[in-house]
Amino acid sequence: KRVRDYGIEIGILKTGVNNSITDVEGVKVGHTTLIAGDSVRTGVTAILPHSGNIFQSKVPAAIYLGNGFGKLAGYSQVKELGNIETPIILTNTLSVPVASNALISYTLAQKENSEVRSVNSVVGETNDGWLNDIRGRHIKEEHVLTAIKNAKGGVIEEGNVGAGTGTICFQYKGGIGTASRIVPKSFGGYTVGVLVQTNFGGVFELNGVPIAKELDNYPRQYTYDVDGSCMIVVMTDAPLDARNLERLAKRAIMGLAKTGGVASNGSGDYVIAVSTAEENRISYQNKSIFEEKKVLKNGAMTPLFLATIEATEEAILNALFAAKDMKGRDGHEIKAIPMEKILKIMQDYNQIVEKE
Amino acid sequence: KRVRDYGIEIGILKTGVNNSITDVEGVKVGHTTLIAGDSVRTGVTAILPHSGNIFQSKVPAAIYLGNGFGKLAGYSQVKELGNIETPIILTNTLSVPVASNALISYTLAQKENSEVRSVNSVVGETNDGWLNDIRGRHIKEEHVLTAIKNAKGGVIEEGNVGAGTGTICFQYKGGIGTASRIVPKSFGGYTVGVLVQTNFGGVFELNGVPIAKELDNYPRQYTYDVDGSCMIVVMTDAPLDARNLERLAKRAIMGLAKTGGVASNGSGDYVIAVSTAEENRISYQNKSIFEEKKVLKNGAMTPLFLATIEATEEAILNALFAAKDMKGRDGHEIKAIPMEKILKIMQDYNQIVEKE
Amino acid sequence: KRVRDYGIEIGILKTGVNNSITDVEGVKVGHTTLIAGDSVRTGVTAILPHSGNIFQSKVPAAIYLGNGFGKLAGYSQVKELGNIETPIILTNTLSVPVASNALISYTLAQKENSEVRSVNSVVGETNDGWLNDIRGRHIKEEHVLTAIKNAKGGVIEEGNVGAGTGTICFQYKGGIGTASRIVPKSFGGYTVGVLVQTNFGGVFELNGVPIAKELDNYPRQYTYDVDGSCMIVVMTDAPLDARNLERLAKRAIMGLAKTGGVASNGSGDYVIAVSTAEENRISYQNKSIFEEKKVLKNGAMTPLFLATIEATEEAILNALFAAKDMKGRDGHEIKAIPMEKILKIMQDYNQIVEKE
Amino acid sequence: KRVRDYGIEIGILKTGVNNSITDVEGVKVGHTTLIAGDSVRTGVTAILPHSGNIFQSKVPAAIYLGNGFGKLAGYSQVKELGNIETPIILTNTLSVPVASNALISYTLAQKENSEVRSVNSVVGETNDGWLNDIRGRHIKEEHVLTAIKNAKGGVIEEGNVGAGTGTICFQYKGGIGTASRIVPKSFGGYTVGVLVQTNFGGVFELNGVPIAKELDNYPRQYTYDVDGSCMIVVMTDAPLDARNLERLAKRAIMGLAKTGGVASNGSGDYVIAVSTAEENRISYQNKSIFEEKKVLKNGAMTPLFLATIEATEEAILNALFAAKDMKGRDGHEIKAIPMEKILKIMQDYNQIVEKE
Repeated sequence: KRVRDYGIEIGILKTGVNNSITDVEGVKVGHTTLIAGDSVRTGVTAILPHSGNIFQSKVPAAIYLGNGFGKLAGYSQVKELGNIETPIILTNTLSVPVASNALISYTLAQKENSEVRSVNSVVGETNDGWLNDIRGRHIKEEHVLTAIKNAKGGVIEEGNVGAGTGTICFQYKGGIGTASRIVPKSFGGYTVGVLVQTNFGGVFELNGVPIAKELDNYPRQYTYDVDGSCMIVVMTDAPLDARNLERLAKRAIMGLAKTGGVASNGSGDYVIAVSTAEENRISYQNKSIFEEKKVLKNGAMTPLFLATIEATEEAILNALFAAKDMKGRDGHEIKAIPMEKILKIMQDYNQIVEKE
Repeated sequence: KRVRDYGIEIGILKTGVNNSITDVEGVKVGHTTLIAGDSVRTGVTAILPHSGNIFQSKVPAAIYLGNGFGKLAGYSQVKELGNIETPIILTNTLSVPVASNALISYTLAQKENSEVRSVNSVVGETNDGWLNDIRGRHIKEEHVLTAIKNAKGGVIEEGNVGAGTGTICFQYKGGIGTASRIVPKSFGGYTVGVLVQTNFGGVFELNGVPIAKELDNYPRQYTYDVDGSCMIVVMTDAPLDARNLERLAKRAIMGLAKTGGVASNGSGDYVIAVSTAEENRISYQNKSIFEEKKVLKNGAMTPLFLATIEATEEAILNALFAAKDMKGRDGHEIKAIPMEKILKIMQDYNQIVEKE
Repeated sequence: KRVRDYGIEIGILKTGVNNSITDVEGVKVGHTTLIAGDSVRTGVTAILPHSGNIFQSKVPAAIYLGNGFGKLAGYSQVKELGNIETPIILTNTLSVPVASNALISYTLAQKENSEVRSVNSVVGETNDGWLNDIRGRHIKEEHVLTAIKNAKGGVIEEGNVGAGTGTICFQYKGGIGTASRIVPKSFGGYTVGVLVQTNFGGVFELNGVPIAKELDNYPRQYTYDVDGSCMIVVMTDAPLDARNLERLAKRAIMGLAKTGGVASNGSGDYVIAVSTAEENRISYQNKSIFEEKKVLKNGAMTPLFLATIEATEEAILNALFAAKDMKGRDGHEIKAIPMEKILKIMQDYNQIVEKE
Repeated sequence: KRVRDYGIEIGILKTGVNNSITDVEGVKVGHTTLIAGDSVRTGVTAILPHSGNIFQSKVPAAIYLGNGFGKLAGYSQVKELGNIETPIILTNTLSVPVASNALISYTLAQKENSEVRSVNSVVGETNDGWLNDIRGRHIKEEHVLTAIKNAKGGVIEEGNVGAGTGTICFQYKGGIGTASRIVPKSFGGYTVGVLVQTNFGGVFELNGVPIAKELDNYPRQYTYDVDGSCMIVVMTDAPLDARNLERLAKRAIMGLAKTGGVASNGSGDYVIAVSTAEENRISYQNKSIFEEKKVLKNGAMTPLFLATIEATEEAILNALFAAKDMKGRDGHEIKAIPMEKILKIMQDYNQIVEKE
């Protein structure tokens, strides 16, 4: 059950059909989950903005550095050119190079790309080294290629899956989560979808209810108990240029804040925002010096900002609600959120909306 | 009564003595409030990092552009040099030039500054044009100089005062608010103080309780009902260099997010962060090519990040709790938050901690 | 005579008709020169991207901070929204507030702007305090309004005029200079025009010839002898969005570098870049949520980059060639470049192209 | 022979003993050159800021994005934390992931690093795909580890070596180049060393002499004939913090500008700047919350700026002077600069300083 299934409603906007990043038309997500022996607890998650050849038909994009203690690949070219030309891969910290290389392999191998000699891989990561033998670098190229190949729309798995297999959030088991919002028709009726890889700390709040305080489970060392990272991927079918996508990306960190995240020193908190609007794709072959774009004005951004904040908050909560207990490296064990206690607290705070 | 006087506790860290930016030693705040006739509802707030000659003894500083739809003066020099050399002034949008000029007058007039020919005024603003005849530009240099002169430590006024005289927040009367936090001794025991000029919108939450939802008072136009701005000034006695002050400043927006702010398109949300640590001041006269600094490491920042988030959230709430109904330009009237209804909701949500 | 009149050809691209920023259609420039008594040596230069109501019909724009030791007004809103809504004013360091205020007055007074309550003045400056009694703040609002009113196209004055009246460059008399370039037809045939206010230092080179070395006149103190600033305004009729305008702006500093400028610590080196293309103006009244734009692609930028580099280099040289000896405050005197000696050196270096 | 051996003197500052990045004490450089069969023409260059364990003893650093069309690894963490924790590797575009992975292997394998689970590899690249079968990804981890192992001080190889094996500059054969400058004693007597991997285009000038114009060899397509990239590594023993290192890095692009580079759209022009000053290294183990630093003030930066500009210009020229003709993939051949013609032009322009 996801957070909303308990009658907990985050925000004021409507969700998409599946309350998922895949509610944005054409977006697909694929996971490779690697659980082996006592200490391999990691994986790969691939997010595809569309099903075509992304190198040939690039998407407007921006990346925001919420807190840059991380190894994300691909930042500078996205900043300079305002677009992304590969699937987006999430994995563990020490596997970014392998995933980057896999994206190059993937791109070079596509038929239309036989003369391509430059590829800007976009790969994000969080550090699953407490549960996972991260030094072993168990992710291989084929795991990445499989995640891309398996990518699909519709309902996607959350929790201990893909790049979320070994992550920790608020000292509970974290993982992959997703959510979506739809802005009102008068503002275009666009969908904003968010997918998160939650591996961060802070003072946990659930829809504003101070869970960490109630459970007396909040940071006191301000090191391992708050560090970690959060990768956030935002997709929208709203036709946005790179400048407004960067503004959108900044709002995702505001959603993270509402769960109690603090973007601690050791956190790599990144937001990758993409517009999937078909009419604004950037063709690699077209040799005209012009591009004609129909984009949203600055003044139309605010509903999308709110949608991003709400979807990010709910995606993080969905990751926590879906994650299960996990034992890993050196006998380390991380428990899922204590659901019963939490629901009891939510009721005390009058925050469960009964559903028939 | 301030928010905490109702038994509403924001966050987990302790406040300073006065729960005020002035808990940071040496920091002073002064207001000039301009209420005249039917339509003048504006003012000036001055924040001084120390009581000496700030030009001669500059303070390490950074400014973060949360959303840059505003007219803040002084950004680029602070970014380049990492310091501030004047008092910080807040006022209304169209009075930034007058306030900047006043800071030049103030600086040139100081005895030690008789040969000074360059002054980087730092002035922030929000737009009080709904209640105030902002086009009349009623702020004069003397109002700014008076605010500086009247600056004092200890308990400071909040609500409809100084630069907060005519501001609007979540469609209620906004104003000036302040709060502070102290980090645990093992992390240095430093104080973080925040002062805000609240003039922004969003979906109001009070310590996580969805007030806007309960009162059915949230944005539907996504224009006047969310726009506006928030100026946030963060002071700390922690010895921080400009890079870590910029990181600190970014966290203040996370505090704003927790009140339901969305940093709308039309919002000028800026954070000015200053370290008051005496040992790291930048002397104008000293001609050594070196400066010797004792600063906090990256790894010691997290408790300060949390302190900034909490103090910002509470400062915004204090502004709302202190503000009173205000009638202004063209008969426009803005009501203070409906305190009784809100307290009732807080009780329903089990969020009033009884105090004896 | 301008630099090119001596047969010195900067770069490989063609100039516009007047080798002036006004070669960009619709661009106008106006000066107010203030020379009074022994010590007033200052002024104002206004650059208008078009002759309409700029607030109602904003222009895509970007500002690049080459070295941010300066007091430029208007940065953050241009960065956030990607446009400029006032004429661009250049003046002296301590007169930025007065000029900002004048732009507010100018904007509020325009008939269509009767309900406008927010204006983002864009004002740049350099410090003319060696020759000018800058502490006297002699610039008044009317000087700014006059510069705007007098703005015209065609041939414009260079040297000791407007905001260049009291400036110093490479320890010689600096001032206002301008130049332009046209990119080849196959790349759109666009014009790039540059106007500079030169007040900086370094190791002077004229079209690559090491003048400073030959004249043994280069920095040894690395303070007053290199400091100062350079304001650079770039206009183009190429249809560029804000992201590509920021990239264009960065190249202007490369043109400055070729004159021997070093962007010293004390320098405020800013580039303001504007696209005047009529079809991409941003209407204030139009309430559609969309804007349709035809803009140049990333891949079409390179010729414009080269044009910007060349025009900036030549504009700086034109300022030096036009400036005359100036006596000012406290008997300070700054000489124009020693033309005869310099031409002799240029001949020695085989750099004078004879013209019949 | 290097450029200076022909009596061509770039700038006014003195060089270090070897006019090399290795003039900065402790800095070492290693190359792996890969030339095999008809079409493998690539390599790796490693730059080490000191000979210790760099992860345990990190160096203050900054990276400037001159033009971000490139795949540099490691940007965001350097930006956030202000330091570098690995050797710096340069290689070809599609080998960045392999080189990043090699840096992880290198770091994990060091004895003191047995508990390290996070490594921020810093890898730069340019695209040698015209001469090299870049799609073949011939660089392997061992090539990177060998380059690190072979790193040494003193005189280093330039031209067709290491990461410069297959690069092209101004349509001539480019490669690796290096140079250094020493600032006057009164400003600290520090050394600035620069190493470049030249693979870019523009309108070639040699010490200000318009070679491209004279040889009628300048861009007309503005695509392959200007694109490419330049990686610039700047090392200095001056004690600089990350903020001033970023300012220093920006000046390197001004040096590139003086050779006629335009930072074309397709160029990945990055500057990595590092302070090697031993007293400011960042210890990984030390658990104090403080760091005590003695750093240069803003006001002491200008001589270092000039040193960086001059050393970058000369390093680029040294790369061109050292590079030899190269035949590679698909029979493509790139010639070295036509030395005789160029020296003849330099004499015509009176730019050869005779040396006995």
